[in-house]
Amino acid sequence: MPYGYMGRILRINLTSGEVTEQQMDDGLARAYIGGSGLGARMLYDETSASTDPLGPENVLIFMTGPLTGTKVPTSGRHAVVAKSPLTGIWGESDAGGSWGVALKSAGYDGLIITGQSPRPAYVWIHDQGVEIRDATGFWGQDTYGVDAHLKSVTDPKASVACIGPAGERLARIAAIMHDGKHARAAGRTGLGAVMGAKNLKAVVVCGSQAPAIAGPEALQASIKRLAPLIREKTTNYHKYGTGGGVVTNAVLADMPVKNWRIGEWVDSAEKISGQTMAETILTGRYYCKSCIIGCGRVVKVSEGPYAGVDGAGPEYEALAGLGSMCMVDDLEAIALANELCNRYGIDTIETGTCIAFAMEAYERRIITQSDTGGIALNWGDPEALIQMVHAIGRGEGIGQLLRHGVRAAAESLGGLTLEFAIHVKGMALPYHDPRALSSLAAAYATYPRGGCHRGMSHGLERYAIPELGYDEPMDRHATVGKGVMTAIAQDYYGLYNSLKLCHFIAGAIAPSDIVTWLNLVTGWDMTLEEFLRVGERASNLKRMYNLCCGLSRKDDVLPPRITTEKFDEGGSKNYLPHLGDMLAEYYKHRGWSKDGVPLPATLIALGLEQEVADLPLGYREVSVQK
Amino acid sequence: MPYGYMGRILRINLTSGEVTEQQMDDGLARAYIGGSGLGARMLYDETSASTDPLGPENVLIFMTGPLTGTKVPTSGRHAVVAKSPLTGIWGESDAGGSWGVALKSAGYDGLIITGQSPRPAYVWIHDQGVEIRDATGFWGQDTYGVDAHLKSVTDPKASVACIGPAGERLARIAAIMHDGKHARAAGRTGLGAVMGAKNLKAVVVCGSQAPAIAGPEALQASIKRLAPLIREKTTNYHKYGTGGGVVTNAVLADMPVKNWRIGEWVDSAEKISGQTMAETILTGRYYCKSCIIGCGRVVKVSEGPYAGVDGAGPEYEALAGLGSMCMVDDLEAIALANELCNRYGIDTIETGTCIAFAMEAYERRIITQSDTGGIALNWGDPEALIQMVHAIGRGEGIGQLLRHGVRAAAESLGGLTLEFAIHVKGMALPYHDPRALSSLAAAYATYPRGGCHRGMSHGLERYAIPELGYDEPMDRHATVGKGVMTAIAQDYYGLYNSLKLCHFIAGAIAPSDIVTWLNLVTGWDMTLEEFLRVGERASNLKRMYNLCCGLSRKDDVLPPRITTEKFDEGGSKNYLPHLGDMLAEYYKHRGWSKDGVPLPATLIALGLEQEVADLPLGYREVSVQK
Repeated sequence: MPYGYMGRILRINLTSGEVTEQQMDDGLARAYIGGSGLGARMLYDETSASTDPLGPENVLIFMTGPLTGTKVPTSGRHAVVAKSPLTGIWGESDAGGSWGVALKSAGYDGLIITGQSPRPAYVWIHDQGVEIRDATGFWGQDTYGVDAHLKSVTDPKASVACIGPAGERLARIAAIMHDGKHARAAGRTGLGAVMGAKNLKAVVVCGSQAPAIAGPEALQASIKRLAPLIREKTTNYHKYGTGGGVVTNAVLADMPVKNWRIGEWVDSAEKISGQTMAETILTGRYYCKSCIIGCGRVVKVSEGPYAGVDGAGPEYEALAGLGSMCMVDDLEAIALANELCNRYGIDTIETGTCIAFAMEAYERRIITQSDTGGIALNWGDPEALIQMVHAIGRGEGIGQLLRHGVRAAAESLGGLTLEFAIHVKGMALPYHDPRALSSLAAAYATYPRGGCHRGMSHGLERYAIPELGYDEPMDRHATVGKGVMTAIAQDYYGLYNSLKLCHFIAGAIAPSDIVTWLNLVTGWDMTLEEFLRVGERASNLKRMYNLCCGLSRKDDVLPPRITTEKFDEGGSKNYLPHLGDMLAEYYKHRGWSKDGVPLPATLIALGLEQEVADLPLGYREVSVQK
Repeated sequence: MPYGYMGRILRINLTSGEVTEQQMDDGLARAYIGGSGLGARMLYDETSASTDPLGPENVLIFMTGPLTGTKVPTSGRHAVVAKSPLTGIWGESDAGGSWGVALKSAGYDGLIITGQSPRPAYVWIHDQGVEIRDATGFWGQDTYGVDAHLKSVTDPKASVACIGPAGERLARIAAIMHDGKHARAAGRTGLGAVMGAKNLKAVVVCGSQAPAIAGPEALQASIKRLAPLIREKTTNYHKYGTGGGVVTNAVLADMPVKNWRIGEWVDSAEKISGQTMAETILTGRYYCKSCIIGCGRVVKVSEGPYAGVDGAGPEYEALAGLGSMCMVDDLEAIALANELCNRYGIDTIETGTCIAFAMEAYERRIITQSDTGGIALNWGDPEALIQMVHAIGRGEGIGQLLRHGVRAAAESLGGLTLEFAIHVKGMALPYHDPRALSSLAAAYATYPRGGCHRGMSHGLERYAIPELGYDEPMDRHATVGKGVMTAIAQDYYGLYNSLKLCHFIAGAIAPSDIVTWLNLVTGWDMTLEEFLRVGERASNLKRMYNLCCGLSRKDDVLPPRITTEKFDEGGSKNYLPHLGDMLAEYYKHRGWSKDGVPLPATLIALGLEQEVADLPLGYREVSVQK
C-alpha cells in the first residue's frame, strides 16, 4: 500500500448489521487517488441504471484521500458519493471540517454503507471497533442538537456526520451535515436522503491513528515554503469569508438576482456582503482540519426579529440563494435562514432556488396564499424567507412541493413554471452566472453531477495557471477556447475532490506543487501529466455513469432563461453565452463523439477498457464516428 | 362582403350528415384575409388544448383567399388547417394545383369539416349542391387511382383532394394529395390523418362561378406589367423545378446529407439536381392554376429497376429527403420513392427524415435486420429506400415504428436515438440547414407549426426586399439582426399563406405590389402597414394557440445536432448558429416577454384583446414583465 493511505475501507451493511473491511487496491489508488475519483470507480462498479437512489441497494460512500490527515494545507476534506436521489444520476458532494480526518484517524480511508437499518440507527467508529447503535431516541432532532448529543454519548473529541429532519423524511435536497455549529455540509445532490433512506441518523468517528508519510521532512519543508503564499492569496477568505466576493460578483452580474432575472443589485449586495458581516454579526472564524485560511464564519444575532442565530454564518452561496435570489438584503434574516437550513439539514443552494422559484410562481399567481399556507411570498420579504425555510425543512405545506428540488416542483406544477426552474440535470445552479463568465455555460451543461461550477473553469477564466496552458486570464465573454478550458478545469479541479483538497488554494499554488505533495506523501513518482490524466479518467468515468443512467448530449443544456434572456442593466448587459460552440469544442477536446459520447479510443487510453462494453449500442467501434 | 370573396363557407358535419353554410364575416376577412390566417382564427375559436387531433371534435378547415380564382399570378393555392396529429399543436399545410380555385368556383371561400363519418365517405361539391357519398368501394386505393376514379364518377373537370392508404390508417405523417399525377400535396403536420380519422377519403369539387373583382381592368394592367418580371426571376424554377437549387444548396452545405451529419456531397448532388432531371427523366412541366412559372415536373422512367414512374417528379424537398439525407444519388430511385410517397399519401419530408433516422439507427445497430424485416438499411442503398417507403406507406414492419414521424419513433426507441431525431416541436425539419443560413435557426425554433422555413427568413437573408427594410442580402453567418429579420419574414411570408400566393414570386415583386393586387381585388384601401399587421396578427394568434396547447419558450429549440455539431468539411465548415442571441432579439422585436409570451399590450395593439384572457396565469398584466 502506498504511504498516505490507511489501506482499509470499512463496509457496513445496515440490513444485516454486518461490518467488514476491504483492502485498498494499490492500482486503483494510483488510478483514482481517492475522494470522489475513487468513489466514482466504486459507485460505477456497485450500482446501475436500475438502482433506486433511496433503495437499500444504493451505496453511500464516504472517501478521504491520501493527503487527508496530513499537514498539507486544506487537506481536511472528504467526499460523499452515491447515486443521487435529487437527480437520479451520478451524485457526489464534499465537505470540510474534521470528519474526514477523524475517519482516517480511526484507521480507514473510506466507509461504504449499504442496505437499510430496520430501525433508526447511528454508527460509532473508533479505535476499538465499530458499533451500530439505536438512534430512536433522538430521531427528529436537528443537526446542531444531534452533534452535541452524540459527542456527549461517545467522545467529546468525536466528529459527527449526520442528517436533520429533512433527510429523515427523504427530502431530495437533504444534506449531510458535519461538526454541528461549525457547520460543514455535503450539501449537494441530496445525499442526506440516502442516509435517511438507510435509517441512518449519523456516523460518529474518532481515532488516534495517522497515515504514514513517505517523505515527511520534505513535505514539511514544501508546506512551510508555500503556506505564506497561500495565506497571502486567500487573505480575503480569512477576513470576509466566501461572502467577501458578494459585491465583486454583483458588479459583474455574476451573482444571480430575483431568480436570475435582473443584472443590477449592487446597493443591496453591499448590505449582505462578507465585509458587512465582518462589521456586524461576525463573532469569530473557524477552520477545517489542516486549513490555514479559515473562511468559516461564526455569527451571532442577539436582538431583533432574528435573534438567536448562534453558530455558522452564511457562505457566499447562502448569501446569494437566500439573499439576492429572493431579493432579501437583510443580513440577519439570511443568517437565520442559513442556520435553519443547517439545522434541518437542507442544501442552501437548492433551498434558495426553490424559494426564489416559488416567489416567481407567486408573483405570476401560479401559486397563491392558499398554496403557501398563508405566506405572502413577496420578493425581498425576510419574514417570508424564514417561513419558507421552515416549510421546506419540515416538508409541510408548500414545503411538500419544494423539498425535492426545483425540477420536481416545476414538473409538478407544469406549464410555464418549467421556464423558470433554474437547474441542469435536476440540480439547481450554483450562484455564478454564465452571462457574466461564459465558460460557466459549458461547465454547467457538462458537469457530471448536474449544474455545478466545481469544474472551476471560471477560476481559470479569472486567474492564470501557466502549467495548464493559461498564462493570463481570458476575456470573460469570449467563446473560442472556453470549451477546452472547461474540460481542463474540470479535470484539474476534479482532482481536488479526489485528493481531497480545498479549491481555495488553487489560485495560490501550481499544479506541480500539488503533485509534489502527493508524491511526498505517497512515495509515488507521479508526473504532472499522469496526475492530470487521473482527473481526466474520473471525468470520463462519471460521464459513462450518466450515459448508463440514460443521459446523453441532449441533457447537456442550460435553463432557457440563461440561454435566451439578456440583462438590460448591470455588469453583463446584453450578453448571452454561445453554448453550442463551447460544447462542440469541449467534446472534441475530450475525445468524445460529436454527440458527446466518449470514443472507445479515449476510454482505452485512460485505462477504461472495461467501460467500452458499456458504451451505447453503435458507439463501441471507432469506425462509427462520422 | 368585399369583392374577391364568395361570401360563404361550407360546413359539413360528417357525424350527422348535416350540411350548412355560414357567411364570411367582413371584419374577419380584413383582419385575417383568408388562407391559414383566417384558418387560425377559426381553429382558435373551435378547438382547445383538450381537442384530440384524431377525434371527431377536430375541425378540418380548407381555406382559399380573396385572390384565389383571380388571374393574380400563383394565386391558385389553398390552405388546410387543423389541430395537428403529428405535433399536437397548430397544424397547417397548403397546396397548389387546381383544388382551391375549384372550391371557389363552386361558390365557397372555405370548407369546414367536423365530426366523423360512420363509414368511408367522400364529399362531392358542385354548383347544384353538396353530397356525402359512400367511399367503401375504393377505400384503400392510392391517391393517383382515387383521383382518376372520382373524376370518372363525378365530372372529368373536377378537382380531387384525397388521402391514400396512409391517411386511412391514421399515419401521423399522412398528407392530403391533390390532382392525381400532377400531384400537389398539403403534406405537412399530418393532416391526411385528420381526414382518415373522419373516414373521409376525398373532397371532390367542381363549379362554374368566379369571384367578383373590384377593379378588374386595373388588376389586369398590373398583372400584365409584373408578369414578365416574375417570369424572368423564376426562369430556373420553370426550367429545372425546385430541384434547380440542389447543387447551389449542396455547395453551401444548406442541403442536409446523411441525416444532417456531413457538409460535403456536391458530386452526388449533381446527379440528382433539377438540371440533371431536365436532361434525363423529365418529359414535361405542369402549372398550378393562375401560375406563370410552372415548377411542376412530369417525369417518366421506362426502363431499369425503377421503371414505371409516370407523373409528378420529385421536388427539392423530396430530392433532399429521399436523396441526400439517405445518401442516395440515384435519381430514378428517388423519382420512384417520390411517386410512392404521393400514392400512399405521405409527406416526403417526414418520410425522408424517418428513413435517414432509421439508417442511422441501423448503422449504430440500435435496430437490426430483424427490426427492418430483412431490409439491409445501408446509407445510399436505393433498394432500401424503396422498400422503406413501401413499409412506411403501408404501415407494415418497420413502417409501424416510423409512420407517425421521427419524434414518435425516437420516443419509442429511446436512448441515443433522441440525439438524431431531427425535428422541432415534432415536425421534421425541411431541408435547409441553419449552419448554412443562420436565420433558419430562429425560424425553425419559433415557427408555429414546428420546424419550418416557410417563415422564409432565409429568403430575406439571400434577397433584398427594400420595402421591408432590407436593401441588400445579409451575411449568411451573421447573428445580429437575424432575430428581427426572422420575425419580419414570418409575418410577411405568412401573408402569402393567407392570400394565398406562392412564395416563389417573392423575390420578384414588392410587398406593395401584393397590397395593390389585394386592394384591386377586394376594393379595400389597405396600406402596406395594415397589410403587414395582418401577418403579425396571424403569427401572434398561432403563438397563442400553441401556448394554450402547453408550449412555451422551452419548446423554441433546435435538435442538438444542429446546435452542437460543426461540419469539418464543405461550404459551412466550423459554424454553429447562436440561437439564444437570435431568440432574444426575436422575442423583443415581437413585443413578447423575455420568455416568449406575447405581452398583453402587443395582443391589444393587434386587436387580439380577447386573447389576453388566454395568456398564462401571471402574464395577463403588463406589470409582470421584468
